[in-house]
Amino acid sequence: MNDFLSDCRSAIGEHYVVTDHTDMAGYLTDWRRRFTGKALAILKPGSTEEVALLVKLCNQYRVPLVPQGGNTGLVLGSVPDDSGNAVVLSLTRLNHIRATDIINNTITVEAGCILQTIQNAATDVDRLFPLSLAAEGSCTIGGNLATNAGGTAVLRYGNMRELCLGLEVVTAQGEIWSGLRGLRKDNTGFDLRDLYIGAEGTLGIITAAVLKLFPQPKARLTALAAMHTPNAALKLLSLAQSHCGATLTGFELMSDFCLQLVVKHYPQMRLPFPQSSPQYVLLEISDNESAEHAEATLERLVTDALEQEVIHDAVVASSMAQSKGLWNLREHIPLAQADEGKNIKHDVSVPISLIGEFITRTDALLAAQFPGCRLVTFGHLGDGNLHYNVSPPEGEAGDALIASQSDINRVVHDSVDHFGGSISAEHGLGAMKRDEIRRYKSDVEMRLMERIKTALDPLNLMNPGKVV
Amino acid sequence: MNDFLSDCRSAIGEHYVVTDHTDMAGYLTDWRRRFTGKALAILKPGSTEEVALLVKLCNQYRVPLVPQGGNTGLVLGSVPDDSGNAVVLSLTRLNHIRATDIINNTITVEAGCILQTIQNAATDVDRLFPLSLAAEGSCTIGGNLATNAGGTAVLRYGNMRELCLGLEVVTAQGEIWSGLRGLRKDNTGFDLRDLYIGAEGTLGIITAAVLKLFPQPKARLTALAAMHTPNAALKLLSLAQSHCGATLTGFELMSDFCLQLVVKHYPQMRLPFPQSSPQYVLLEISDNESAEHAEATLERLVTDALEQEVIHDAVVASSMAQSKGLWNLREHIPLAQADEGKNIKHDVSVPISLIGEFITRTDALLAAQFPGCRLVTFGHLGDGNLHYNVSPPEGEAGDALIASQSDINRVVHDSVDHFGGSISAEHGLGAMKRDEIRRYKSDVEMRLMERIKTALDPLNLMNPGKVV
Repeated sequence: MNDFLSDCRSAIGEHYVVTDHTDMAGYLTDWRRRFTGKALAILKPGSTEEVALLVKLCNQYRVPLVPQGGNTGLVLGSVPDDSGNAVVLSLTRLNHIRATDIINNTITVEAGCILQTIQNAATDVDRLFPLSLAAEGSCTIGGNLATNAGGTAVLRYGNMRELCLGLEVVTAQGEIWSGLRGLRKDNTGFDLRDLYIGAEGTLGIITAAVLKLFPQPKARLTALAAMHTPNAALKLLSLAQSHCGATLTGFELMSDFCLQLVVKHYPQMRLPFPQSSPQYVLLEISDNESAEHAEATLERLVTDALEQEVIHDAVVASSMAQSKGLWNLREHIPLAQADEGKNIKHDVSVPISLIGEFITRTDALLAAQFPGCRLVTFGHLGDGNLHYNVSPPEGEAGDALIASQSDINRVVHDSVDHFGGSISAEHGLGAMKRDEIRRYKSDVEMRLMERIKTALDPLNLMNPGKVV
Repeated sequence: MNDFLSDCRSAIGEHYVVTDHTDMAGYLTDWRRRFTGKALAILKPGSTEEVALLVKLCNQYRVPLVPQGGNTGLVLGSVPDDSGNAVVLSLTRLNHIRATDIINNTITVEAGCILQTIQNAATDVDRLFPLSLAAEGSCTIGGNLATNAGGTAVLRYGNMRELCLGLEVVTAQGEIWSGLRGLRKDNTGFDLRDLYIGAEGTLGIITAAVLKLFPQPKARLTALAAMHTPNAALKLLSLAQSHCGATLTGFELMSDFCLQLVVKHYPQMRLPFPQSSPQYVLLEISDNESAEHAEATLERLVTDALEQEVIHDAVVASSMAQSKGLWNLREHIPLAQADEGKNIKHDVSVPISLIGEFITRTDALLAAQFPGCRLVTFGHLGDGNLHYNVSPPEGEAGDALIASQSDINRVVHDSVDHFGGSISAEHGLGAMKRDEIRRYKSDVEMRLMERIKTALDPLNLMNPGKVV
């Protein structure tokens, strides 16, 4: 392996082949600090050509490699296993914005660009790059692409996949595929772009991408509505889609218990209603006309929903500051749940129409098998994506709960499967759900995936042990 | 081959194995009647299971197969070659709508459903299925999926790819992959869905799909604007996107010569302007509020564009009937061009910002090499997709032009490539552009495509001679 590392040093410079244990540490432990792997080295190429050189060396010496961006993944997809055979290939030095085209509404970025940097670059030219998620200050677009990231604006703008027009990829053989097309329509063969997106680095390394930009909306405004059941929330969703069409950009469900936790742990925050209600929806519209028009649209929707008795109370933010306050409630749910004790997270999706049934059935199954456990159910209802999280019984620290984690996962995932859902809506499989997914996908589907893996990465050097 | 056909008859019934030459004819000639192939038989399975049985038989007897829907393709993708070795596998009997879910906003359809049938089924439940194209009364959704169809609503709703959530596919080995998921978010492995979409039947046979539905807009209204140059049209596009956001659902460029041809051959049609202008844009908005609001939005946009001198004249339709009249002008362009004589069509795309330059440069190259040829340039400007068609010099029937077709294609496609564009924006490659594309795609990309083809269809039985 000394020859390999020495060749790597010649290829990209000594300084960018990190083997010091202290310096490597940050690259080897996952975001939620649940696993620490080992590596021969951290390689930090400075260009696509250098990535290609390194992949060729990995081929020559049969060294597995783990591509890594901001290392903010939640499913152990961007850290190596504990064999110590692999190298981590960090893309963070590929952090240039290569081009911006405000007429084509595209931005061409390298894989290591921080998501927030891209959002800001778009804002600077009066455009919107809509991907938005909790880790946006640290995650890289390469990781967002590799995991087909979701976030809070999928309802209107789609997942990462829909936001990307073209890719540059270093293949598993170390060749450069230049597919950086800024085209809305291109029907000339197999969709390689979407094959690399979401493959979590197991088929090749995304080094750059052409992303879609959108006009900046004139105003974004939110409302918070109170209702009795998730099914009432679904009725509100239909009403909102009919009233607002594509201006509806957010639709988040939160159970009463979620907001109780928020006000318990963050007493400075308050619910804007005199009494509590079993369910709430935070909805957002992005208006291309004006703040007044946005407010009027929301008022009309709320009035209609109240008259039809779909909801029984609502507040409409009349300013951006009020809107932010309502989003704050939503964003403090995971923090409050963490303050409450250890917990188990699920990132699941089901057909939107079955969300009510899914919640009722799964709540009952868990209550029967794990008495007293408390459900912190919230998420992107408009996308059918729930963070169906489980907290321990009141007063317990959660160690017993965590000991039952795999049993609880089984109940939840089997229920998701019962409703034709997905056990990973927006986080990917990584190493964490790689075995779990075999329970739910057919042999036919797994074989198709394995054939593709073998065809594109026959030596199994690209992020081995992840996805397939 | 008698054993093969006899086994096919046992599998799906004698009546559905067509070998009579007269009965086969309609399946062997392409839509534009440029090529007639031969086939052993036309097979007409009645279910996904029967498709799977037939594909297994094709594997057993090594018989190539050509999947076919409405046979309306424009690139010779759905007819067999003239060897007579293949069978045509017609999906038209798989024509059931399996389910509609108005809360999930999805419809599950079989591959042989006519596009218009699906549009109507959506309208019946007060939803919109937005895919719309000239052949919608005859083409099937299976073909739309296999070719990743485009059409007139891509600007807002995306290509066929973006309108599909899940697929059922019979693999090249005759296995059934049940990927009929109605999920907005699912990140559990390689994107097989998008690999089969756009593969033109060369990797497997799409037998059913889950499609997205949208709220019906309250009003659709159009405006026709007159401007001097394609670059002015691009400025109008930016203005329109800023004013209208996602309510902008159509943005079609038409040169003056296009509309001259329309009024020449359809004298009952009139341009709504006192004098002609070098370029026109037909734009459409779909409003979720009201017809009045749509009209006010268009009026505001037009006033702004006039004040900024981006355009010099415009009419805003004040009724659906007037809107239809404006669309009629656009839709008569290909008809008028056909009336004018033989012509050469191109279906190209370039980055939207480069459309003006592309037109100027390519017009000049053609004028120099093919003096007098007349360009009928129109298309989906909002998607960067031009139908850059060539008519013969005035008074010529077009035979000389057709004789130069490959030279003209070369000039146009080389120019498209120069601007980083695509030689097939929405029609696919089929047999017609299969060799042509090798000129423009890198060896790396072709090798990736070939690896995937070999991995999924090692016997090369699925629509051989198409795409790769």
